Amino acid sequence: MIPDFSCDYKNGAHPAVLKKLVETNGEILNTYGFDKYSAEAKEKIREACGLPDAEVFFISGGTQTNMTVISSVLRSYQGVICASTGHINCHESGAVEATGHKIIPLPHHEGKLDADELSAYLSDFYKNESRDHMVFPGMVYISYPTEYGTIYTKDELTKLRRVCDEYGLYLFLDGARLGYGLTCGACDITLKELAALCDAFYIGGTKVGALCGEAVVFHKDKTPEHFITLIKRGGAMLAKSRVVGVQFSALFTDDLYFRIAKNGADKAEELKALFIKKGYELFIDSPTNQQFVILDDETLQRLEGKVGFEVWERAGKNRTVVRFASSWSTTEEEIEYLSCLL
Amino acid sequence: MIPDFSCDYKNGAHPAVLKKLVETNGEILNTYGFDKYSAEAKEKIREACGLPDAEVFFISGGTQTNMTVISSVLRSYQGVICASTGHINCHESGAVEATGHKIIPLPHHEGKLDADELSAYLSDFYKNESRDHMVFPGMVYISYPTEYGTIYTKDELTKLRRVCDEYGLYLFLDGARLGYGLTCGACDITLKELAALCDAFYIGGTKVGALCGEAVVFHKDKTPEHFITLIKRGGAMLAKSRVVGVQFSALFTDDLYFRIAKNGADKAEELKALFIKKGYELFIDSPTNQQFVILDDETLQRLEGKVGFEVWERAGKNRTVVRFASSWSTTEEEIEYLSCLL
Amino acid sequence: MIPDFSCDYKNGAHPAVLKKLVETNGEILNTYGFDKYSAEAKEKIREACGLPDAEVFFISGGTQTNMTVISSVLRSYQGVICASTGHINCHESGAVEATGHKIIPLPHHEGKLDADELSAYLSDFYKNESRDHMVFPGMVYISYPTEYGTIYTKDELTKLRRVCDEYGLYLFLDGARLGYGLTCGACDITLKELAALCDAFYIGGTKVGALCGEAVVFHKDKTPEHFITLIKRGGAMLAKSRVVGVQFSALFTDDLYFRIAKNGADKAEELKALFIKKGYELFIDSPTNQQFVILDDETLQRLEGKVGFEVWERAGKNRTVVRFASSWSTTEEEIEYLSCLL
Amino acid sequence: MIPDFSCDYKNGAHPAVLKKLVETNGEILNTYGFDKYSAEAKEKIREACGLPDAEVFFISGGTQTNMTVISSVLRSYQGVICASTGHINCHESGAVEATGHKIIPLPHHEGKLDADELSAYLSDFYKNESRDHMVFPGMVYISYPTEYGTIYTKDELTKLRRVCDEYGLYLFLDGARLGYGLTCGACDITLKELAALCDAFYIGGTKVGALCGEAVVFHKDKTPEHFITLIKRGGAMLAKSRVVGVQFSALFTDDLYFRIAKNGADKAEELKALFIKKGYELFIDSPTNQQFVILDDETLQRLEGKVGFEVWERAGKNRTVVRFASSWSTTEEEIEYLSCLL
Repeated sequence: MIPDFSCDYKNGAHPAVLKKLVETNGEILNTYGFDKYSAEAKEKIREACGLPDAEVFFISGGTQTNMTVISSVLRSYQGVICASTGHINCHESGAVEATGHKIIPLPHHEGKLDADELSAYLSDFYKNESRDHMVFPGMVYISYPTEYGTIYTKDELTKLRRVCDEYGLYLFLDGARLGYGLTCGACDITLKELAALCDAFYIGGTKVGALCGEAVVFHKDKTPEHFITLIKRGGAMLAKSRVVGVQFSALFTDDLYFRIAKNGADKAEELKALFIKKGYELFIDSPTNQQFVILDDETLQRLEGKVGFEVWERAGKNRTVVRFASSWSTTEEEIEYLSCLL
Repeated sequence: MIPDFSCDYKNGAHPAVLKKLVETNGEILNTYGFDKYSAEAKEKIREACGLPDAEVFFISGGTQTNMTVISSVLRSYQGVICASTGHINCHESGAVEATGHKIIPLPHHEGKLDADELSAYLSDFYKNESRDHMVFPGMVYISYPTEYGTIYTKDELTKLRRVCDEYGLYLFLDGARLGYGLTCGACDITLKELAALCDAFYIGGTKVGALCGEAVVFHKDKTPEHFITLIKRGGAMLAKSRVVGVQFSALFTDDLYFRIAKNGADKAEELKALFIKKGYELFIDSPTNQQFVILDDETLQRLEGKVGFEVWERAGKNRTVVRFASSWSTTEEEIEYLSCLL
Repeated sequence: MIPDFSCDYKNGAHPAVLKKLVETNGEILNTYGFDKYSAEAKEKIREACGLPDAEVFFISGGTQTNMTVISSVLRSYQGVICASTGHINCHESGAVEATGHKIIPLPHHEGKLDADELSAYLSDFYKNESRDHMVFPGMVYISYPTEYGTIYTKDELTKLRRVCDEYGLYLFLDGARLGYGLTCGACDITLKELAALCDAFYIGGTKVGALCGEAVVFHKDKTPEHFITLIKRGGAMLAKSRVVGVQFSALFTDDLYFRIAKNGADKAEELKALFIKKGYELFIDSPTNQQFVILDDETLQRLEGKVGFEVWERAGKNRTVVRFASSWSTTEEEIEYLSCLL
Repeated sequence: MIPDFSCDYKNGAHPAVLKKLVETNGEILNTYGFDKYSAEAKEKIREACGLPDAEVFFISGGTQTNMTVISSVLRSYQGVICASTGHINCHESGAVEATGHKIIPLPHHEGKLDADELSAYLSDFYKNESRDHMVFPGMVYISYPTEYGTIYTKDELTKLRRVCDEYGLYLFLDGARLGYGLTCGACDITLKELAALCDAFYIGGTKVGALCGEAVVFHKDKTPEHFITLIKRGGAMLAKSRVVGVQFSALFTDDLYFRIAKNGADKAEELKALFIKKGYELFIDSPTNQQFVILDDETLQRLEGKVGFEVWERAGKNRTVVRFASSWSTTEEEIEYLSCLL
């Protein structure tokens, strides 16, 4: 079987996660979020995040998490600010707008939002005499890592937090690939520090060892009222909540989540070194598990069908940006296989 | 462990379903609905339904399925008719209204909609000179079995179909417990016949052997345009679609779905016989896996903590309706245990 | 021209209202609610209502007012309770649901909601263990007068207020025909008393002397945040706000609103007396400007084309309920004309 | 009274419009769009547009018209493309998103959308393999004149139409200031030609002689089904539809609409000539009734309070873009007054 680097969710569950699903399968458990494994997993997540009072909820996928959190936090007159490349703005089929809220895109810098530009936007907004005829900014949405694999430094996150505080904005972090960000070499922040800086964020399971499921973490006083009902209203509640609860319980036992994420980040380093060594041009200098490389048409055709990767976007005449993604399950053999092809 | 009859989704997956999840876990599979197990499962479902051209989609839960289908089929000026006891009207936290559509409840008869009453409602509606200021009926939603465990006869379904045809309404059947309906003794219709009578329906997995997942089946020419995008927009798309695809593939291999559902229906018969024998009063004569019994307060207190059941509603002074649900996993031992208590 | 009693909004504006529109037409005025006539009208309304701190907004029509207020007050997980006959539930084409909220209808009593039944509903709701899967009641909507012309007594309103207080519900009163209620003989409450009992209500202009426009009055601490933006978002903001401001300024000068409304109420009394005298059967004993009479088919046919009235609903074989509405513009001559026909 | 050029809707109605409102005020007329003046006005508009089969509807304001038309035409999976400066994208408080649809902004060129850029966007979209996870373009929204006062040439509109045809997009034109566009010197298209090129458009009344009201014109086969109900559902239906019907009947009698619009366009020419003569810098070379001039801070302060204009946006250090708007009611005296100040 040829290796597939096209994305980080074509694999199954991590064996330890699957094992726990199998071991607990015979048990009779409460439903709708009240099973004991969900309770156990929530406690472990609170501890890992250093937020003993946090409210934690499990939702089956990322788009669903984003739309449920965003629509629950925002008031009707508010919209959500994000980098123009934000997942909610580009690849969620208008899910946020479907809940009635405008997305306010600001320019991105390799996928990131700039705190100064955010501040300038907000300052202008509140000086604008027509602002009552506009959408009020209510939240800042950022991805960590971003859609281009880049990560915010602790300093950058702190500055964003400061701007949010100044303008009363809610800071929500999409951590679909959180593990790959926190375990990469360039990361200068801990989960606890990141958790402290956000009002809410989610820890992605789907891309880091689970079959499905994301864990949303809210600071206690920033939890939307009746969030359980809002989850149900959005169709995001699993009857057998054990499915996600058990998986997150496994992922947050003995640091499994971070240990397996580190493999994804490490393999990405190897991929990057390989591309550089072989003279390929990087589209972006990503420190995490998504590597973006520019291929000329000849190389593109040569590689197609020999190894899995994803065509991202055109980069001018005869040149295409493609993505190679590693994950917790990427093996040394797969890297070597690729090495021989390049 | 004391037996728990409170609902039919506290158990895990059927062993054969779990086995297939384990066996396929190591494979690298396509995503977003395009994995081979989803393709395989869809083909098996088309065959079981006798609809070779049907479009089949997998969605992780029932509320999500209902809201996605209903909001995709209806035009903005339309609402959905259902029995007042319909799940969408009572226990989905307003999910359908959240998509902008009114639910038009008609009186229920042991959970069922009456074709004559439906016809009378529609006739009145189209005679009403103010109808442009009202919500146009666009769909009829029915549950099979209903929320009270009852089932429509083939004749009743055929009559509903006829009324829908007469008034250009879409007929959608919520089959969260479809297996328990089709395998019960009172059932006089086959899956193929039922499938032919509806425009769309869903086959419930969560309550019949799966960990999660429902299979929506559309007649080809009644499939909403761009339904994949609508699933994504509603947050209902699993990245690792294998999760549900594999389970349904297992459930529709060698009639597993129906064989295990039959156990739930059979055990319900035993439960009912037991209650009758012991002199309990049935609240409703349900032929399927949900049995509704009236308990006086003394009995209620005596049983509480000794066996699992669900309090449904008050039935006057000192009397309470409770639900005992069987499922594919209910055992003879559990029935006997209960028998000793009653 | 034959008199038309079919509804109370086929006439134009009251002459004094029109006169003020003409007189002020040449002025250059601020827009979007900030013109001086709107300011003046708001002040007069605050005074008439005995609510010096109230926030008052003008919106061009009733449905728009209802949907804007209801969607602004409710949180996403909440719905609005009303009598099953409530205008929002029957004749607004699903406008409230279009904003994402469920309407929770309770039985009506000649169009009115019963405080005890409301209380029982709420008590049951909060005892229901499944309530997190239901729509939380957030508001009570009542019409005064109701869609059947009936009015709540002061005692009835006070009881509803008490229930709302007990359960933290917002009380919103639809006063599309408020003037005809407050000036009828059966009314035992003043505008100030009514205003004190509600959290918000609207004073209908369209049916009481204006060409268009309703005035929403909020208790200061019950005004939705950024309501101006919410009005704009709902498309309900007139650029030339003078249109409604000037009309309400005229209506609330020298008690014009109530003086002209009284004509509507008085003429309704005459209509009712006439029907009774002539041996017609009243469908409901309405004290306000809408009179509902039962006609046999022969009489119905005889009157059709000779005088304007509205067919309301069938009342069994050969019998039809019809509505005769009076208004501020109904004349003695019109009543006499009708008298000769009956 | 100092002249006010800040916007084009601080005045009242044109005298002939007001006169017709007064003359018809005593009549008893049908409601909800079925009054005879609405019928008469629709017929006149059809004729003026050269679309004998067109469906015409009256709605009270521009935002309401935009949101009602856009949400009625689009399917759930679709969004609307517009220039980033489009009114719907900037100054309608998120009204379109409130109906569940994304706005897809493309770069503007002095307020205009470029047909080639539109075509490139669409071509890329349909080549994008992730398009099922994106919002499908369903409509192109343009303003004529644009928010910067510029107008599309006939050739530009024809090219946009061609692109829309190629990709199956609906072309909707916001004509809030249509009159000022069609009567300006730079205009090279007739109303009939413009009407033929769009699927739907609206003729703005509020800014061109009316107190309120816009006329939406649909090509017959592009009219949304049950549009009357959709107007009601959006709260956009006036009970006394005569209010807008009578005004449009007056405006489309003897070409009044265009005759008075021409005054606005002509006065704008004079304003522009004046600014140029006095050495002011134009921000944009607008041919219609909105003129955008750059003022240095000193001039800005000098003019403030002496004449009405609107601050638009900062144009760098010490420089501000301001808008001077003329209208049908702008007089020679007002221009002369301004001339003395500059």
